[in-house]
Amino acid sequence: MLSTTREKLQTVSTATLATALFKRGLKNQFIQGVKPLSKGKPTMVGEAFTLRYIPAREDLNPISVFQDPKHPQRVAVETCPKGAVLVIDSRKNSRAASAGSILASRLMVRGAAGIVTDGGFRDSAEIAKLNMPSYHHRASAPTNLTLHQAMDINVPIGCGDVAVFPGDVIVGDDDGVMVIPAHLADEIAEEAINMTLYEDFVTERVLAGHTIVGLYPLTKEENREAFEQWKKQQEGTKEKE
Amino acid sequence: MLSTTREKLQTVSTATLATALFKRGLKNQFIQGVKPLSKGKPTMVGEAFTLRYIPAREDLNPISVFQDPKHPQRVAVETCPKGAVLVIDSRKNSRAASAGSILASRLMVRGAAGIVTDGGFRDSAEIAKLNMPSYHHRASAPTNLTLHQAMDINVPIGCGDVAVFPGDVIVGDDDGVMVIPAHLADEIAEEAINMTLYEDFVTERVLAGHTIVGLYPLTKEENREAFEQWKKQQEGTKEKE
Amino acid sequence: MLSTTREKLQTVSTATLATALFKRGLKNQFIQGVKPLSKGKPTMVGEAFTLRYIPAREDLNPISVFQDPKHPQRVAVETCPKGAVLVIDSRKNSRAASAGSILASRLMVRGAAGIVTDGGFRDSAEIAKLNMPSYHHRASAPTNLTLHQAMDINVPIGCGDVAVFPGDVIVGDDDGVMVIPAHLADEIAEEAINMTLYEDFVTERVLAGHTIVGLYPLTKEENREAFEQWKKQQEGTKEKE
Amino acid sequence: MLSTTREKLQTVSTATLATALFKRGLKNQFIQGVKPLSKGKPTMVGEAFTLRYIPAREDLNPISVFQDPKHPQRVAVETCPKGAVLVIDSRKNSRAASAGSILASRLMVRGAAGIVTDGGFRDSAEIAKLNMPSYHHRASAPTNLTLHQAMDINVPIGCGDVAVFPGDVIVGDDDGVMVIPAHLADEIAEEAINMTLYEDFVTERVLAGHTIVGLYPLTKEENREAFEQWKKQQEGTKEKE
Amino acid sequence: MLSTTREKLQTVSTATLATALFKRGLKNQFIQGVKPLSKGKPTMVGEAFTLRYIPAREDLNPISVFQDPKHPQRVAVETCPKGAVLVIDSRKNSRAASAGSILASRLMVRGAAGIVTDGGFRDSAEIAKLNMPSYHHRASAPTNLTLHQAMDINVPIGCGDVAVFPGDVIVGDDDGVMVIPAHLADEIAEEAINMTLYEDFVTERVLAGHTIVGLYPLTKEENREAFEQWKKQQEGTKEKE
Amino acid sequence: MLSTTREKLQTVSTATLATALFKRGLKNQFIQGVKPLSKGKPTMVGEAFTLRYIPAREDLNPISVFQDPKHPQRVAVETCPKGAVLVIDSRKNSRAASAGSILASRLMVRGAAGIVTDGGFRDSAEIAKLNMPSYHHRASAPTNLTLHQAMDINVPIGCGDVAVFPGDVIVGDDDGVMVIPAHLADEIAEEAINMTLYEDFVTERVLAGHTIVGLYPLTKEENREAFEQWKKQQEGTKEKE
Repeated sequence: MLSTTREKLQTVSTATLATALFKRGLKNQFIQGVKPLSKGKPTMVGEAFTLRYIPAREDLNPISVFQDPKHPQRVAVETCPKGAVLVIDSRKNSRAASAGSILASRLMVRGAAGIVTDGGFRDSAEIAKLNMPSYHHRASAPTNLTLHQAMDINVPIGCGDVAVFPGDVIVGDDDGVMVIPAHLADEIAEEAINMTLYEDFVTERVLAGHTIVGLYPLTKEENREAFEQWKKQQEGTKEKE
Repeated sequence: MLSTTREKLQTVSTATLATALFKRGLKNQFIQGVKPLSKGKPTMVGEAFTLRYIPAREDLNPISVFQDPKHPQRVAVETCPKGAVLVIDSRKNSRAASAGSILASRLMVRGAAGIVTDGGFRDSAEIAKLNMPSYHHRASAPTNLTLHQAMDINVPIGCGDVAVFPGDVIVGDDDGVMVIPAHLADEIAEEAINMTLYEDFVTERVLAGHTIVGLYPLTKEENREAFEQWKKQQEGTKEKE
Repeated sequence: MLSTTREKLQTVSTATLATALFKRGLKNQFIQGVKPLSKGKPTMVGEAFTLRYIPAREDLNPISVFQDPKHPQRVAVETCPKGAVLVIDSRKNSRAASAGSILASRLMVRGAAGIVTDGGFRDSAEIAKLNMPSYHHRASAPTNLTLHQAMDINVPIGCGDVAVFPGDVIVGDDDGVMVIPAHLADEIAEEAINMTLYEDFVTERVLAGHTIVGLYPLTKEENREAFEQWKKQQEGTKEKE
Repeated sequence: MLSTTREKLQTVSTATLATALFKRGLKNQFIQGVKPLSKGKPTMVGEAFTLRYIPAREDLNPISVFQDPKHPQRVAVETCPKGAVLVIDSRKNSRAASAGSILASRLMVRGAAGIVTDGGFRDSAEIAKLNMPSYHHRASAPTNLTLHQAMDINVPIGCGDVAVFPGDVIVGDDDGVMVIPAHLADEIAEEAINMTLYEDFVTERVLAGHTIVGLYPLTKEENREAFEQWKKQQEGTKEKE
Repeated sequence: MLSTTREKLQTVSTATLATALFKRGLKNQFIQGVKPLSKGKPTMVGEAFTLRYIPAREDLNPISVFQDPKHPQRVAVETCPKGAVLVIDSRKNSRAASAGSILASRLMVRGAAGIVTDGGFRDSAEIAKLNMPSYHHRASAPTNLTLHQAMDINVPIGCGDVAVFPGDVIVGDDDGVMVIPAHLADEIAEEAINMTLYEDFVTERVLAGHTIVGLYPLTKEENREAFEQWKKQQEGTKEKE
Repeated sequence: MLSTTREKLQTVSTATLATALFKRGLKNQFIQGVKPLSKGKPTMVGEAFTLRYIPAREDLNPISVFQDPKHPQRVAVETCPKGAVLVIDSRKNSRAASAGSILASRLMVRGAAGIVTDGGFRDSAEIAKLNMPSYHHRASAPTNLTLHQAMDINVPIGCGDVAVFPGDVIVGDDDGVMVIPAHLADEIAEEAINMTLYEDFVTERVLAGHTIVGLYPLTKEENREAFEQWKKQQEGTKEKE
């Protein structure tokens, strides 16, 4: 994606993105069942770097497996590119952890834009405090070896019932996480910026007592004019800042 | 309901109401699976104004349907009476939104007492900040057209496995949402006020180290006397304020 | 457990305990599906004192049953030992409450270390404010008589899919609740203290930019040496305090 | 629908219909979670006649309500048109029955084409033996008054997560139940007949050892020719019968 | 229960029993989520003999535990009285077996009237063939030690969300399993016999083309007379047999 | 596996295999939630050949994708080795089909030993009739493109919460499907044969009225002797056949 796309996406909501994707026939891009470990953080934006788990078989997953520096979970954390979001396919199973605070901290230090699992994180209080957004289903203390075996890095996965391809653009806010197919990211970002501007105008109007009829969606000409005028004022305000 | 009923209900808990309804054989009036978007708000009280969703069929739910000012979702928001709670039957499906912040804002401005869905809201961070209580299952960014089609206004519905009839009195606190059948609202409110008074007395005693035996429920005569005396003190205190 | 065990467990996380138990082949000791009513409280530690519920049969559970001072729920609250955690087997059913704020308050006043149910509490806002940790699945206003009948005190139970025997050591933090078999508590506590020390070292290193390879788990000799040195510094720091 | 449409639909599978609807962008027309009470019956085809249930409130649903000849459940059974399928919105709740064998028998005698609920039937062994197809989630003995209150007749409903409008064409076989929007029934039936013919040809070929590559779907010219020839033979065979 | 009660219950359906219990305010006596391993068997009737499982802890459940002749599962099988139904509280967990064909065979040989679990049986094909009714959620091959630990015999339990007290009368047919509180068994049996007689009459009428209005439930006088006459004919027929 | 292993496994039950695996610490090898489409078929035995699905993205899954002869689903069917079982990771989602009767027929003709999905098959009545065992969660008519995108062939997958590696030995009977790690297949088969022999002896004894105490498991010496004698008789009987 363009560098401006990242900036744009940081200012729009997952709800607005969902509508932009819906208009293109993409109705299943919201990762179901995940929420931020900490609310109110800046919007998460980054390309997907994926990690695939399968169920753990007991004989293959003693605690000693992590001594192997090539263990896929550890490799994922050490190779996830700067600015990317690590998205983990935990098969919607949060009965054991997908990862803990040390790995999340390492990811943050390495410059990752965020971490998402459709399972759960352990040390959730620590992860919540990190300066990096994180999303899961619920907290889960058991080590991931209990139920998960890391298998592949950066292959197409499912996460929360959504297809995630490496390089897809992942956006997260307090509602949850949206997956934008890579080839659409730039145009969706641009469209979402414009939609957001109009939504801000509508919100202001609604809070001032206006009806939504004819305003949301815009079907009355007078609202269009009012919007154009409002936009000019906004730009004026910004210039003065 | 009587205007005093609204005031009374604003001072009692859904737990106390549940017990009062239980005594009358009504054991299924708590909307299952919903929670406040923001905790610690004043208790929500209002008559139910309902909106019924059915699953969305793709050909009937393009984004353009909202251009119709008669779309039931928009009509519901523009006709919900002042002081009422909009209760949405989303069939317990939170995989797409039931509504977003603009509609919730409009409802608030129009004087609604609150909004409840057994699905999820989008723009949940914005709705949480509104000066109006709101309840859902979980946040959900996808537009409601993705999975829901608004069908009827103010018909009897199910919400979170509870029957909700238009005019039923809806009460919400941090535990969740209670549905009081309309014809019982006044007497339940009166009874709940008295129960609450006793519970406050009990809590004070318990925190002071008293056993609950004979006190909760009241079976020892000495506790009855202590309660009567406590009530007089309370009244005295209030009069002085 | 030793009194020092309680102190040790108050300084370690459920995640660390899960790993220590995993090493001993105990992979199913994390109570699934419960969370703290209030985050950020001190770690809960105490021996399990259990209460078993079965489904309520309507004729056996009128509101009057609580007038019996021998009702198991009330007896549990009045006999739970100081320092113990009351663990309730609610059969993972949170559609009615497991208990409310008055009982929780009484428990706290009597010196209990905490309360856990795999169902839900009513008056959840009040319980969250108590000076005692509490864990449930979700808030639930209906009185427990609606769906639960208290049956036994201090028998082995299931709670959140985990076997809980009276006397097992229960530990809770923001991730949730861990059950340590009684006979392992002392050794697990000791081991967890040491693991925690190393994890603190690792976290410091990771935040300072070190790779996790060779460090977590410890496989490089230089990290072992660095850890030994760090420990000495830590002890020095503590002595000065 | 045309009378020939009914005949055509009786010879095609719900799987084939699903594909025909998929091609038109209708991806959510299969009623989720229902199965035939008895397998191997003739394909069920009929226009939807709907019945909407909401959760039962105890005071409104004593056993005596059925004495009212206008009770919606009884009216539905007595007014469902000949050739129609009664589709019941039970909110996917099979913990109490949607109906029992006497009502199903009456429906059959009155000429209904079938009965579907996303809940469960009682007297399921009796209903399974009727000369009329029936579909539910699972058997359920409790009377419907326990959890369901019949509310509306022939309004749009949800059934198994699918929108069902009165007059939609309902088709059921051993896989389950498909909902064809009324306006598409004739063209879908025609298309499905042709698809079925080709699938029969493919099946014959596959069982004779042919690869599916180029055959299913048809992409190799020689298979097209073989199909044309096969069709002529089939017609010849039929004429001789 | 009276010996005639057992005979009576063998001729009525769980649906009829559910209605008789509903009339007495007992709305939750149908074991949810279980079905017969084999349909079409004679109705199961017997007093409940219960077995309580808790989740298995790995160290307490090696395969060797069964060498202890006092293992509660084995004791239950060897002490379940003749004519009783073994009801197992498996906490609705069918991911491991509740029991297998050898134990079920032993129960049958010892004269048990049936076996019920809200989990699953292994060797399900063998159990289905036994000359004793059996009910479970679904087949499950893993040994019960995998997830279940047998704990108590003949204590009150929950099974499929229903309270089951030792001695309650258990009745099973193709719909599933009903739990009749012990003290009501005789009167419920008598009432159900009469209800069944009327239902047989109604079914005959309905299949002959009569409307259900006024007939089911009986509100028209002429139907009452017809029923009285039909009963006399029935008795005549039986006498002749 | 040895060719004799296949033969041995065809004569033992998944329950017996589960116990043999349990003894080796492998407690999670039973595919959860699947059942045979048709009961009473010969035991399915074969090496796993896997197919991995991810959620379908609408723009990548028009009906035309099947025209590509390299579509992974089609390639899987055309390359699955003779004697192997095709195991599909459908992410436990049966809301759309994993495959239909034409592909299953092709697999059968090509010599596959069976087909398993943790989703559902369409044309289930046809597949049930094939001369090849098949297992799924439930029937599902919608084309797999609706929700599934075939992604990989013969990679490690999860199926019904079990890890399945290519080459693992898959065994299915009426209870469901067991996954035996490849390296254990020969020894497990041998052990299961012996266990089965003893179980046959026990069943015979139990049906003849013997107690299970001391017999199952074998702890009484006299039973050991009786078994040895019974084995000799069995061998004698077989030799005479």
